[in-house]
Amino acid sequence: MNLTEALRQLVGHEQVSVNPTMLEQHSRDESYHRPHTPDVVVFPRNAVEVSEVVKFANSHRIPVVPFGMGTSLEGHVIPYQGGITLDFQRMNQIVEIRPEDQLVRVQPGVTRSQLNKELKKYGLFFSVDPGADATLGGMAATNASGTTAVRYGVMRDQVRDLEVVLANGQVIRTGGLAVKSSAGYNLTGLFVGSEGTLGIFTELTLRVYGIPESILAARASFPSVESAVRTAVSLLAVGIPIARVELVDRVSMEKLNRHSGTHYEEAPTLFLEFHGNEAGLQQDVQFAKDLAADHGCSGFAFETDAKGRNTLWEARHNLAYAFVHGSKGKKIMVTDVCVPLSELAGAITYAREQIEAAGVEGGLLGHVGDGNFHALLLVDPTNRDDLDRAERVNANLVDYALRCGGTCTGEHGVGVGKLKYLRREHGEALDLMRQVKQLFDPHNILNPGKKLPID
Amino acid sequence: MNLTEALRQLVGHEQVSVNPTMLEQHSRDESYHRPHTPDVVVFPRNAVEVSEVVKFANSHRIPVVPFGMGTSLEGHVIPYQGGITLDFQRMNQIVEIRPEDQLVRVQPGVTRSQLNKELKKYGLFFSVDPGADATLGGMAATNASGTTAVRYGVMRDQVRDLEVVLANGQVIRTGGLAVKSSAGYNLTGLFVGSEGTLGIFTELTLRVYGIPESILAARASFPSVESAVRTAVSLLAVGIPIARVELVDRVSMEKLNRHSGTHYEEAPTLFLEFHGNEAGLQQDVQFAKDLAADHGCSGFAFETDAKGRNTLWEARHNLAYAFVHGSKGKKIMVTDVCVPLSELAGAITYAREQIEAAGVEGGLLGHVGDGNFHALLLVDPTNRDDLDRAERVNANLVDYALRCGGTCTGEHGVGVGKLKYLRREHGEALDLMRQVKQLFDPHNILNPGKKLPID
Ligand SMILES: Cc1cc2nc3c(=O)[nH]c(=O)nc-3n(C[C@H](O)[C@H](O)[C@H](O)COP(=O)(O)OP(=O)(O)OC[C@H]3O[C@@H](n4cnc5c(N)ncnc54)[C@H](O)[C@@H]3O)c2cc1C
Ligand SMILES: Cc1cc2nc3c(=O)[nH]c(=O)nc-3n(C[C@H](O)[C@H](O)[C@H](O)COP(=O)(O)OP(=O)(O)OC[C@H]3O[C@@H](n4cnc5c(N)ncnc54)[C@H](O)[C@@H]3O)c2cc1C
Repeated sequence: MNLTEALRQLVGHEQVSVNPTMLEQHSRDESYHRPHTPDVVVFPRNAVEVSEVVKFANSHRIPVVPFGMGTSLEGHVIPYQGGITLDFQRMNQIVEIRPEDQLVRVQPGVTRSQLNKELKKYGLFFSVDPGADATLGGMAATNASGTTAVRYGVMRDQVRDLEVVLANGQVIRTGGLAVKSSAGYNLTGLFVGSEGTLGIFTELTLRVYGIPESILAARASFPSVESAVRTAVSLLAVGIPIARVELVDRVSMEKLNRHSGTHYEEAPTLFLEFHGNEAGLQQDVQFAKDLAADHGCSGFAFETDAKGRNTLWEARHNLAYAFVHGSKGKKIMVTDVCVPLSELAGAITYAREQIEAAGVEGGLLGHVGDGNFHALLLVDPTNRDDLDRAERVNANLVDYALRCGGTCTGEHGVGVGKLKYLRREHGEALDLMRQVKQLFDPHNILNPGKKLPID
Repeated sequence: MNLTEALRQLVGHEQVSVNPTMLEQHSRDESYHRPHTPDVVVFPRNAVEVSEVVKFANSHRIPVVPFGMGTSLEGHVIPYQGGITLDFQRMNQIVEIRPEDQLVRVQPGVTRSQLNKELKKYGLFFSVDPGADATLGGMAATNASGTTAVRYGVMRDQVRDLEVVLANGQVIRTGGLAVKSSAGYNLTGLFVGSEGTLGIFTELTLRVYGIPESILAARASFPSVESAVRTAVSLLAVGIPIARVELVDRVSMEKLNRHSGTHYEEAPTLFLEFHGNEAGLQQDVQFAKDLAADHGCSGFAFETDAKGRNTLWEARHNLAYAFVHGSKGKKIMVTDVCVPLSELAGAITYAREQIEAAGVEGGLLGHVGDGNFHALLLVDPTNRDDLDRAERVNANLVDYALRCGGTCTGEHGVGVGKLKYLRREHGEALDLMRQVKQLFDPHNILNPGKKLPID
């Protein structure tokens, strides 16, 4: 009996596909990484089915690659060793909303926009917002973050409990509904960010927040990227509890206006958002304005209504698409270093020099409140020279970040693209990580070849 | 050559003690748990010495128990299998303060008050504040929290990087200086809360915060514990970013006044603190006052100056001592359940009934903003009946918490006292936790018999 038949006996016939278009759709992500098709795609409907499939795969040593929305940027979901791709699009139920506990239970295929639409009815929101409309399973697996991490934290901070299918098919729960616990070992935090290599999430319990009384968004334009960054760092240093502070450089502002039909000033810009009560917010905003002025801010434009605010953040979220759509045949390579705040201005200056010196087309943007920024580089993946030049910028930025105690990836994760930097970043801890992988997945069936290098 | 001599050859002579008083001091914690002496106490001065001692212990299968301040409450530091106690009191250097990065690097024996005294010079503070003046190594090892977790998070949220000596003597670093990372597996979060059973911390990099522009503390008195709790839960539900919200019941208020020489109203009380800017804080406080009044608050007293505020929080922090000092020969048993906020009022009502029914002397207090509260029970550890009655209250509260998705320990950790609840709390995940322990410490030398039950 072949693989497809065997899987069809485990789960329903129509939940297993070998349709070439379907295989092709699961052969790539949104980045420059070389595609590779899986042997078969399975669409499970519940944890029992996931467990059955994984148990089968484990006993036959067949790779299993979990697949959320496929928006990850480092080849995370590309099944380079073939096997089974597990696509969670049919596990997209919001299982329970507990407003008083500010908790929600969801299946892994729920997307962040789907969740927020539902939460809004309760006056709640989910804070993590990567630029793509990713699934919560994928976001947990990459420890994603976004524009609001500076205030509300990253994905790991939101996950209270996971239902996880282990490599042997066993189903465990890692946490609970309490705000905090000092009971057993913190498996929840270990699974978050493990990129499908330690276990497969079939349910997530997440922290949500009340929509704040007042929200005010603003754009602040600066003479240089450096002055914008210094403003962001100062805002944090004085303790303004800013909810969002995003850098967009001049090139990116041009792309953004073109793609989103906006007419924002085309200068290095901070996109800001303040959350709080009416009175506190006024004081914060005044302080921020003064501080930006000290750094040469040439214009501070507020978006007071929900419409203007939504336009602003949608334009920001679509920035990567703005770059890609404008350049036929090109794919994106996105650097993702994160550095200590004291090193941020230096790192960004260096990044701009690198991009210019390499002659690559690209912009700089980032979640500067976290010290995390991206060089968004356009490359023709069929052109070796193009790839090499972009890869060199990437490597130099990682080098800079590691030299100052930062990380090669602040939020996108390792996939295959960052494998080569892990030994340097983690030193001997990498050996312990490998032993953890070996313990959790002895036959190396869970997303093999990702997250940790072989050396 | 005996153990003591061997150790003296590894580290200096005067760093190894078998003095009976010294052994006795390391045989107990502050709780009711039965003492047991170590064979020898070592006072290392750096990671190299820790590594040497652990390597030696590992090859000779000798237990090693890390010891911070010995203030943990569940027998964590009691060397029931003898062996070496590693006391970190000579590793108490603040290695580096990085104000712009809001980071600090410390040795594990630094205490929270020592750190805060130093940070104050930079306008910074460290947020986690257990009632005892614990060490940062011990606090990380128990995933401690305190009065400010509701706003700033628990110990795990503050730790960016650990230098860890593994059971084989290898020294690794688990993190870095960046605010966030999606690189390798999250070992940092796994080590935090591992109670000395997975590795020994020799340096910690911690997040610190700017002292807020305005701080206002208050006491609010209520007709009942339930109305106080409902006020706390409502405050959080409406999104007031409260910095501290502590419950103290009537019995505890009496003890507190007697011990601290204060004259606070002896009724169920919330101790509150607000952090923010001047304007925002005024609005928050007004809102809180109105909300408390809706729940029958009979008095809302502010502490506007630093002196009154310090008295308030010192009195709160000394509450456990207030109970013990008042009762010669008695020791404390402290329950530590944490429940979802929607279940808190019910759980606290149940706790009061249980204490009364059991006829134990004790008070209720807790970090109610986290759903975490303590029944502080006075027991005579030589009186079996006394212990049994208190133990039954403890067990019933844990039962209540686990039934509603909570945890047996919100912040104190497992030690030996909570071992019996872990299977029920973690289910099959406990087996995976055991395998993790086996991987990290194959000869079970690191604080053996703690944290995970044998079943
Ligand atoms: C335009 C654009 C903007 C972006 N902006 C951001 C940003 O601001 N911040 C950010 O962090 N990222 C960003 N990303 C990257 C991406 O959106 C995130 O990595 C996201 O978390 C991926 O989610 P996904 O559902 O697409 O997961 P996928 O790409 O499908 O999978 C990602 C990883 O998770 C694993 N996985 C998926 N589901 C599960 C599961 N149920 N159990 C276990 N493992 C699973 C996969 O195997 C894979 O390793 C952006 C991407 C794009 C294209
Ligand atoms: C009056 C009182 C009030 C308290 N209030 C609170 C509270 O509000 N919140 C709270 O969370 N706790 C509270 N506690 C409990 C206690 O203070 C905490 O558990 C604290 O974290 C213990 O720190 P310590 O330095 O005393 O550690 P110890 O008691 O010495 O050790 C605790 C654990 O950590 C391990 N350990 C110590 N150092 C290291 C190291 N360098 N590397 C690895 N492992 C190590 C030990 O082996 C042990 O398992 C209170 C205790 C008392 C007595």
